Amino acid sequence: MMKFSVSKLSPEGGRLGVLSDIHQSTKQRDVEVLTPACLMYTRGGSVPHLTLDMVRCLPHQSGIVELTVSSFIEYRETMDGFKDGLAKFVGISNALTYLAVQDSCKSAPAGYNDKSTVSVWAPSGRFRLNSASFMSFQRAAKSNITEALCDGDTREGCSKKRIQKAVNKTLQFLDEILEENLNAETCQQTEIFGVIEGGDLLSERLRSTKETAKRPVAGFVLDSFGESFMKEETRWKLLEPIIKELPEDKPRMLPQIGEPLDVLLAIENGIDLFSAFYPYQITGTGCALVFSWSDENKKTLNYQTNRPDDINEGFYIDLNNKKFAEDFSPVLSDCECYCCQHHTKAYINHLLVTKELMAGVLLMSHNVHHYLSYFEAIRQAIKSDTFALMKKHIQEQHMRTDR
Amino acid sequence: MMKFSVSKLSPEGGRLGVLSDIHQSTKQRDVEVLTPACLMYTRGGSVPHLTLDMVRCLPHQSGIVELTVSSFIEYRETMDGFKDGLAKFVGISNALTYLAVQDSCKSAPAGYNDKSTVSVWAPSGRFRLNSASFMSFQRAAKSNITEALCDGDTREGCSKKRIQKAVNKTLQFLDEILEENLNAETCQQTEIFGVIEGGDLLSERLRSTKETAKRPVAGFVLDSFGESFMKEETRWKLLEPIIKELPEDKPRMLPQIGEPLDVLLAIENGIDLFSAFYPYQITGTGCALVFSWSDENKKTLNYQTNRPDDINEGFYIDLNNKKFAEDFSPVLSDCECYCCQHHTKAYINHLLVTKELMAGVLLMSHNVHHYLSYFEAIRQAIKSDTFALMKKHIQEQHMRTDR
Repeated sequence: MMKFSVSKLSPEGGRLGVLSDIHQSTKQRDVEVLTPACLMYTRGGSVPHLTLDMVRCLPHQSGIVELTVSSFIEYRETMDGFKDGLAKFVGISNALTYLAVQDSCKSAPAGYNDKSTVSVWAPSGRFRLNSASFMSFQRAAKSNITEALCDGDTREGCSKKRIQKAVNKTLQFLDEILEENLNAETCQQTEIFGVIEGGDLLSERLRSTKETAKRPVAGFVLDSFGESFMKEETRWKLLEPIIKELPEDKPRMLPQIGEPLDVLLAIENGIDLFSAFYPYQITGTGCALVFSWSDENKKTLNYQTNRPDDINEGFYIDLNNKKFAEDFSPVLSDCECYCCQHHTKAYINHLLVTKELMAGVLLMSHNVHHYLSYFEAIRQAIKSDTFALMKKHIQEQHMRTDR
Repeated sequence: MMKFSVSKLSPEGGRLGVLSDIHQSTKQRDVEVLTPACLMYTRGGSVPHLTLDMVRCLPHQSGIVELTVSSFIEYRETMDGFKDGLAKFVGISNALTYLAVQDSCKSAPAGYNDKSTVSVWAPSGRFRLNSASFMSFQRAAKSNITEALCDGDTREGCSKKRIQKAVNKTLQFLDEILEENLNAETCQQTEIFGVIEGGDLLSERLRSTKETAKRPVAGFVLDSFGESFMKEETRWKLLEPIIKELPEDKPRMLPQIGEPLDVLLAIENGIDLFSAFYPYQITGTGCALVFSWSDENKKTLNYQTNRPDDINEGFYIDLNNKKFAEDFSPVLSDCECYCCQHHTKAYINHLLVTKELMAGVLLMSHNVHHYLSYFEAIRQAIKSDTFALMKKHIQEQHMRTDR
């Protein structure tokens, strides 16, 4: 059974923790996950744009890879036939896997969940899942940690009745799944994370939280907190009272939040786990992350343009911009990622202009590297009581970021 | 000045050669290129789908990378500012570069060349080049070998007049370019390959060949022999008389031909250089190259499906096909490429179904690896006088290939 121990509760907010003894159905190595951490985001089982070899070279990885049901549900028969689980199927058998119901980065279409099923969307269309079909897929997938099936279809402005139904259904799924998991043979069990729903209604969020906390779950997922689900100010107002209801000794995951400042605000509130979808989102827009988390790494942003006013960038720079066409310096001059070691801003700009696939590869390798290093810096900041200073630094850059 | 020496003229057809002393404007290492060879195909300066690190791991590379004017023409000012040439700009400063006017894989729109210019197509649209603007770009690009500017707009069915004009203009460009190159400082010179045009008219092809052969070129490019330019039977009828007019001591390049049997037929006729666009084309269709070139590597194709009749495949297998969804063996069981070492057919099929970018990466890494190994096998076959046997083997698979 998974253990989670909090090693430091910072007076400035935030906590350091260690996840260990995560249930293993296969011969994976035992991993200790230091939190706050972000899970490796994947689509179809691979980190978008990157090969396994490139992923292996990334620093500060949590060791847990997020796989989504929607990417693999078409392959449930293949999984049954394969017998060795998703991790081996996608070639990452030495990593731990976290099975998520929906993609953190894509919104599933609204209005398709009915009384007893939740819909997930594969390329060939809609698949309806109930507790039984979900757990049958999970057994074939052999995920180490499994997010319980949940109804997160509570878009901003939806009715109280819809929200109540979503909470009820999610609790019912959880009970069924916990029972199914308990009845399975030990070697087939998984760590179940309970999912907290409730849209933007505090009363429903609290009911969902309290009820979920009563059950023997291994951790909590605070679902449907992304942009399309509620206003930004509502998010932070809801988070605090929810966290208060949760036990200290279990990890809390907030999958749809990834922007650098949001991550700090969430950690301040007591969140431990995130999904690393943000660098992928940024890559899709042709941007490179350049934010700094201390005065020390601030000097790394080195421009060769003639316009010193450009130096006041926010979290990222847009490499589609013509001003980089003749900038022959790397994205960040002391960054150790594959992209910054081999290529210049001008070359990436050229690849974007000519619409070459390599643009995404280079940007992704930099952006994920930068993001994982950020999480390491956050852990260090909590450790050395400099979290508040880091937050101030990030807030300043947040103000300068176009959105 | 470049040297080309033929080391063997095979009685079965085909010749072995060595390209050396290729003109170097920068501090590149001296490369000996064994022919028949294929140049590394690139778009925007990178091998599509692959990072530099993956490219470095590919076996049997010729050492020459093909870069196209059309990918970089928008960047001519950037090149002027950069001063170190295209090879360094794209991160391959230790490779030799071949500058091609058009992409071997894409057909430029027809009907846009006028009296004194040739049009190339960048993402932002059309650029007209004459000898002066072409050579000004070349000087900034610092290519080691440069295909002279040429008018290859002689689609199947076009008039004799259009073909004559294309030949005349191409010869005129060649004279201007050779003069410009001769007048340049030694360190700025490049090896010029003369381009043979003439559509599907034998008389014009011969005129173009004889005139080009009179000039002090370093090699020959047989342009506009691709599918859209002439019928297949015409191609092989034209090739023989053209080659007869060419001197033995200069290399011959056939850029738009890449299918395995076509390559052998071209080599039989005396072609030395090709462009490696074929594996990229195959990758785009979701297929993997599986053809064998001897009885020895025939056994590597290993199916886990229940239909033994499927084993009679041609040059490639289509991994979009459902029958691979539960095939947990690699594409080729004794292939040493990145893809076959790490992943199964079922996983690639899954990536194709879910439309993940990684499908292209894995397929491309296998397909280029296979294609480069094929060229190595061709050189060995000529050496050991087994070329005719290899051809028979490839012909059999050609018959089984759907096209």
